[in-house]
Amino acid sequence: MKKLKMGMVGGGIGAFIGEVHRKAALMDGGVEIVAGAFDVDPEKSLEQGRNLGLDPRRVYRTYQDMIAGEQALPEGERIDFVSICTPNHTHFPIAKACLEAGFNVMCEKPMTMTVEEADDLEAIVKKTDLTFGLMHTYTGYPMVKLARDMVKAGDLGKIRKVVVQYPQGWLFKPTQSDNMQAAWRTDPKRSGRAGCMGDIGTHAANLAEFITGLRMTEVLADLTTFVEGRLLDDDGNVLFHMEDGVKGVLTASQIAPGEENDLHIWVYGEKKALAWYQENPNYLRVFDQEAPEQVWKRGNAYVAGKSAAAVRCTRTPSGHPEAFLEAFANNYCNFCDTIRARTDKRTPSALETDFPGIIDGVRGMRFINAVCDSSEKGNIWCKI
Amino acid sequence: MKKLKMGMVGGGIGAFIGEVHRKAALMDGGVEIVAGAFDVDPEKSLEQGRNLGLDPRRVYRTYQDMIAGEQALPEGERIDFVSICTPNHTHFPIAKACLEAGFNVMCEKPMTMTVEEADDLEAIVKKTDLTFGLMHTYTGYPMVKLARDMVKAGDLGKIRKVVVQYPQGWLFKPTQSDNMQAAWRTDPKRSGRAGCMGDIGTHAANLAEFITGLRMTEVLADLTTFVEGRLLDDDGNVLFHMEDGVKGVLTASQIAPGEENDLHIWVYGEKKALAWYQENPNYLRVFDQEAPEQVWKRGNAYVAGKSAAAVRCTRTPSGHPEAFLEAFANNYCNFCDTIRARTDKRTPSALETDFPGIIDGVRGMRFINAVCDSSEKGNIWCKI
Amino acid sequence: MKKLKMGMVGGGIGAFIGEVHRKAALMDGGVEIVAGAFDVDPEKSLEQGRNLGLDPRRVYRTYQDMIAGEQALPEGERIDFVSICTPNHTHFPIAKACLEAGFNVMCEKPMTMTVEEADDLEAIVKKTDLTFGLMHTYTGYPMVKLARDMVKAGDLGKIRKVVVQYPQGWLFKPTQSDNMQAAWRTDPKRSGRAGCMGDIGTHAANLAEFITGLRMTEVLADLTTFVEGRLLDDDGNVLFHMEDGVKGVLTASQIAPGEENDLHIWVYGEKKALAWYQENPNYLRVFDQEAPEQVWKRGNAYVAGKSAAAVRCTRTPSGHPEAFLEAFANNYCNFCDTIRARTDKRTPSALETDFPGIIDGVRGMRFINAVCDSSEKGNIWCKI
Amino acid sequence: MKKLKMGMVGGGIGAFIGEVHRKAALMDGGVEIVAGAFDVDPEKSLEQGRNLGLDPRRVYRTYQDMIAGEQALPEGERIDFVSICTPNHTHFPIAKACLEAGFNVMCEKPMTMTVEEADDLEAIVKKTDLTFGLMHTYTGYPMVKLARDMVKAGDLGKIRKVVVQYPQGWLFKPTQSDNMQAAWRTDPKRSGRAGCMGDIGTHAANLAEFITGLRMTEVLADLTTFVEGRLLDDDGNVLFHMEDGVKGVLTASQIAPGEENDLHIWVYGEKKALAWYQENPNYLRVFDQEAPEQVWKRGNAYVAGKSAAAVRCTRTPSGHPEAFLEAFANNYCNFCDTIRARTDKRTPSALETDFPGIIDGVRGMRFINAVCDSSEKGNIWCKI
Repeated sequence: MKKLKMGMVGGGIGAFIGEVHRKAALMDGGVEIVAGAFDVDPEKSLEQGRNLGLDPRRVYRTYQDMIAGEQALPEGERIDFVSICTPNHTHFPIAKACLEAGFNVMCEKPMTMTVEEADDLEAIVKKTDLTFGLMHTYTGYPMVKLARDMVKAGDLGKIRKVVVQYPQGWLFKPTQSDNMQAAWRTDPKRSGRAGCMGDIGTHAANLAEFITGLRMTEVLADLTTFVEGRLLDDDGNVLFHMEDGVKGVLTASQIAPGEENDLHIWVYGEKKALAWYQENPNYLRVFDQEAPEQVWKRGNAYVAGKSAAAVRCTRTPSGHPEAFLEAFANNYCNFCDTIRARTDKRTPSALETDFPGIIDGVRGMRFINAVCDSSEKGNIWCKI
Repeated sequence: MKKLKMGMVGGGIGAFIGEVHRKAALMDGGVEIVAGAFDVDPEKSLEQGRNLGLDPRRVYRTYQDMIAGEQALPEGERIDFVSICTPNHTHFPIAKACLEAGFNVMCEKPMTMTVEEADDLEAIVKKTDLTFGLMHTYTGYPMVKLARDMVKAGDLGKIRKVVVQYPQGWLFKPTQSDNMQAAWRTDPKRSGRAGCMGDIGTHAANLAEFITGLRMTEVLADLTTFVEGRLLDDDGNVLFHMEDGVKGVLTASQIAPGEENDLHIWVYGEKKALAWYQENPNYLRVFDQEAPEQVWKRGNAYVAGKSAAAVRCTRTPSGHPEAFLEAFANNYCNFCDTIRARTDKRTPSALETDFPGIIDGVRGMRFINAVCDSSEKGNIWCKI
Repeated sequence: MKKLKMGMVGGGIGAFIGEVHRKAALMDGGVEIVAGAFDVDPEKSLEQGRNLGLDPRRVYRTYQDMIAGEQALPEGERIDFVSICTPNHTHFPIAKACLEAGFNVMCEKPMTMTVEEADDLEAIVKKTDLTFGLMHTYTGYPMVKLARDMVKAGDLGKIRKVVVQYPQGWLFKPTQSDNMQAAWRTDPKRSGRAGCMGDIGTHAANLAEFITGLRMTEVLADLTTFVEGRLLDDDGNVLFHMEDGVKGVLTASQIAPGEENDLHIWVYGEKKALAWYQENPNYLRVFDQEAPEQVWKRGNAYVAGKSAAAVRCTRTPSGHPEAFLEAFANNYCNFCDTIRARTDKRTPSALETDFPGIIDGVRGMRFINAVCDSSEKGNIWCKI
Repeated sequence: MKKLKMGMVGGGIGAFIGEVHRKAALMDGGVEIVAGAFDVDPEKSLEQGRNLGLDPRRVYRTYQDMIAGEQALPEGERIDFVSICTPNHTHFPIAKACLEAGFNVMCEKPMTMTVEEADDLEAIVKKTDLTFGLMHTYTGYPMVKLARDMVKAGDLGKIRKVVVQYPQGWLFKPTQSDNMQAAWRTDPKRSGRAGCMGDIGTHAANLAEFITGLRMTEVLADLTTFVEGRLLDDDGNVLFHMEDGVKGVLTASQIAPGEENDLHIWVYGEKKALAWYQENPNYLRVFDQEAPEQVWKRGNAYVAGKSAAAVRCTRTPSGHPEAFLEAFANNYCNFCDTIRARTDKRTPSALETDFPGIIDGVRGMRFINAVCDSSEKGNIWCKI
């Protein structure tokens, strides 16, 4: 397995998600971090480069510098892809610049600030024919892949209803200025049009579409800003319709005290139902009106008959739990295998391309737009 | 404790809820069943009377006969109250007749077929000054009473959001004609304007109002009939607003395969949150963003400091679980104690009157009306 | 269904288990309480009789008086059986006297103070040919019956291992003199040779034998009295062997702070395993090395194919949980049906006689004796 | 942070635990794998080296070659430590040789085949003054560290009782010759005197000692080989005594169908109790007889006040679960930080040396010896 060279934009000292990207990328031994523009402050960027043991010549002041510097290196030496872990408002220009310079991109979500940017980026990905990944972590979990493959195999029958909850509590009070995460996430200039809905509502919507294989067609949203002085929604309840007459409800919150990251989804079909819970992610519950509930557990031989994608994303035997970082890493693995395949002039397999990408990003931006429109216009149905 | 004499309308052989009423009423030794009009078929009614060991002279052909027959008995001998366990469309005329004849009433829910009937019944209850109970079972659970008392004490701070789910699976296929329960529940003539929303959506709404102590002010509903040929909704997703700016979402379904009776509620306040789950009802989870989750457990001494109402409804020590029948019985206990107090010319205490009644019934009918209106009018906000 | 007449010994005001007996007996409408010797203090006994609405002539000063008084009544009027809910040391003389006077008996456990008494009682039951029930509550749970029937059907294959835990916390501190329950349970004169092992260890052992259908043949016990000044064990760990080479471990404690009544059993066979947990008793988990875990849930149609005994003990639909009082009541139902059958000169069916009785009592006393012997003799194997 | 250079012995293609070591070591970016003797077959070793992107000159035929080859390299280039991931019987000679050649060692468990070897290795570690880690994974979990720190802080009061269960199912049938893991684990020549007790019983014992901070003083064991033809125990039940009068019971099994890796521990003190469950490891339950149960959750600010060690081992925010690989990685992190400190001539802090090592290994071998002795001698108490 060829070790791929990764450059980072963002992920400076103290940044939460950049550190997660690094651990996830490194875990399986298929990636090395060789370059970065880690911080808007060049000194801090250099310090982070030192922490990571990088050649200081490949620690750049800006992402533009990184692009230029890496382009100047010989092919086998320069980075294979860029991971973008910056606040939301910079995703688009960085991703655009990287792609146009010929670099594959793994990008944090939400992908852009607007639908227009998302459409632009989609066009750029198509034009450049490069590999683009979007870090919707939760679809990287093996049991989520199993869920999708069960639905695809028709085990649940035609889908009728989806319920997805995503409560968090960490923004239940006014944002403290010393919380770097909270600060930009609640600032429209850096976060975009939506707060809670952009940060986690998109994950919930993405999960619903991923498992069912169906698209949301319209939403009716009731967004709220509960914490005084906050500029973006910190809570939202959404009715939605999907293709094929599926009805659903999505609720997300960041003002739910004591809730951590309680993403929970239920999918109801004509024959069976399933439920998956992110905080205990190694299990998939399958309900049948006429038979005992089944609890499918990651890492068992019987999973193989149902989901090659889940098996491929399994590192440890059953009962030795895998969790968030491994889900994250699964997206990196497939993203990297796709790059490797294309580098080898081989068409990547469906298992290799099983990671979220540009389409998920465009869908996410449309979702954000539609829920904001709906809420602003008085809770009417808005098309996605 | 004076043993009260109970008469039943409905609850014939094979009826689910009538049997539950009997067990709940009898369990604590404070009630004896002495009369009944159990079935529209007088023979079957007599047979049920024999099963119950009743004096055949007090097994009546119709509820009208029962009213007349019991009125003719001397005061100490005649029934103290009537339990109404018939299909929905007959609740109103029976309750009205009983009340007007001077009998206290415990009625199944939903209380009536229309809001108008509900308003009429409220007037009759006021006028007759009799004791009227409505069997919203779930608010009879001790941990639900504890939840309410925590909210009332301000432990959660001002309430911001409520999420309530109520999925069932038993109607996921076309109703079989041999399923007595399913048959009338899906027939608008006997069930009323709503199917799933009347049968279980009202429980969910009642629970939300009970725990928060706040009223729903408006709803926006998306009701669906998934099973072909069915005449009433079998699924619904509802956005709602409550007093004091509380936002919420309610989802109920009877086409969710494998779901049994998964009523689950989460209440989020400015300070803390709580969650209660009907299928494992002896526990109340309390969430705090800044401290470990607490699991309050029925029957412990520490509950006493927070909820006298919960303690009063506790029969067995902690760890010896109580469940559905006991919750049901709690409503009977308080209902009967209220009757006893009033018989003794004593004002019943707040603990004694802690059972659902006419107000809950009126609220329930308004809820049903509003969600049906909203759904029919294209998912707009409708006042309750 | 003929309503049986019940007399009580014990169950005075404030007594925990007597109240439970009453609720359980009354719940299903097949029993009426008509007589009692509720308290050693005749005044208190009378008061309890008044609370229960009894004819004061049938509230007796002593159980001997009750036996005499009831024998003097005409057959259709006198009690059909006696429930014995007194401290342990009086079970034997009362049960003996009742049986010898021709009354059927439902007795609290442990059945006697010694193995000799237990053997005597077994002989008396045989001789009198009366119906004798022993209140091992936990085998009354439907899912425990299902577990037994699965094992009997060979679903688990030959049993290899049993693990059973029973921690409680309520005696974790020195017993307060004002805790009536704790006082006699920790007094060897009233409780017998064992404390924790007699009170709850016997339940755990009974459950293991009930589900597997196998007898414990020998035990090796390490009993401890952790609380200073206490005269009986308050904790014990036991290795055991069963017939057919089954190995097991049983641990019980009453000094486990915060544990309520956490009876938990795991049974491992050559093919499958099962687990049942008393505090959430409506579920039976079935494990298979080569297939997803199954969660069997009380009240579903699929249970019927496996356990008629479980179905017979089911009152409410799936998802409407049943719990401790219902398990208790199940023992009463089958006990009473057996009496009814024998009254009708009919041989009761296996489903009717499916309640714990004299054999369980004898086994329990042998278990207590063996664990005490083993612990006193330095943790050696002692035959049961 | 200096990146340490790691060499591996074992961990060839298809080896389970070697792969886990690599992922765990790499995840946090502080280690690079530069050398290895991965397989007894040199060709396979080379292939694995290629997979890992190693310089083929540093892929060795034997561990002896690796030691010699690495010693010949200049100091800054040669490996900093060796990870030993071979079957049990080779741990001792490899660890001995590495240490005596001046290399720090991270070793799989059980550490040696005999107590004598363990004692020898302890002497060698002392003499060489090198850093030695033993991979008892489970004590690497943050919530296990929190549990230990709670006990140490006296939150539970004096400890009275410990219950630890460790059931697995994967050896429930005769070992198939094509299962590499199963083959050596059930072969006394390669696995040592104990089967199940050596493989997982030691983990359970180690966990009990780690959390309580107390040593087991004696054990009384009942080991069984259930699967015909197997040469080592595949199941065991153990009574144990610890210092300070603590009583306990340990049960482990590898023939428990459907059990995955269900390590579960309960610790009961005079004041409070705690429970931790490996398959859902981000939570620590704390029980109090007089207050609601608390669920402590990894990653929350309130953990910091109780356990700096837990905080140090936390990578992701609360609700973003960490699991087995992260626990494994925590042991690597602290092991490596200790090496770094000593390289820098600094005494490592208590937080840095918070990883299992030689003492755990010696204790583990004594535990194995004592349980085997006890079982062979007829279930008598044997000192550890």
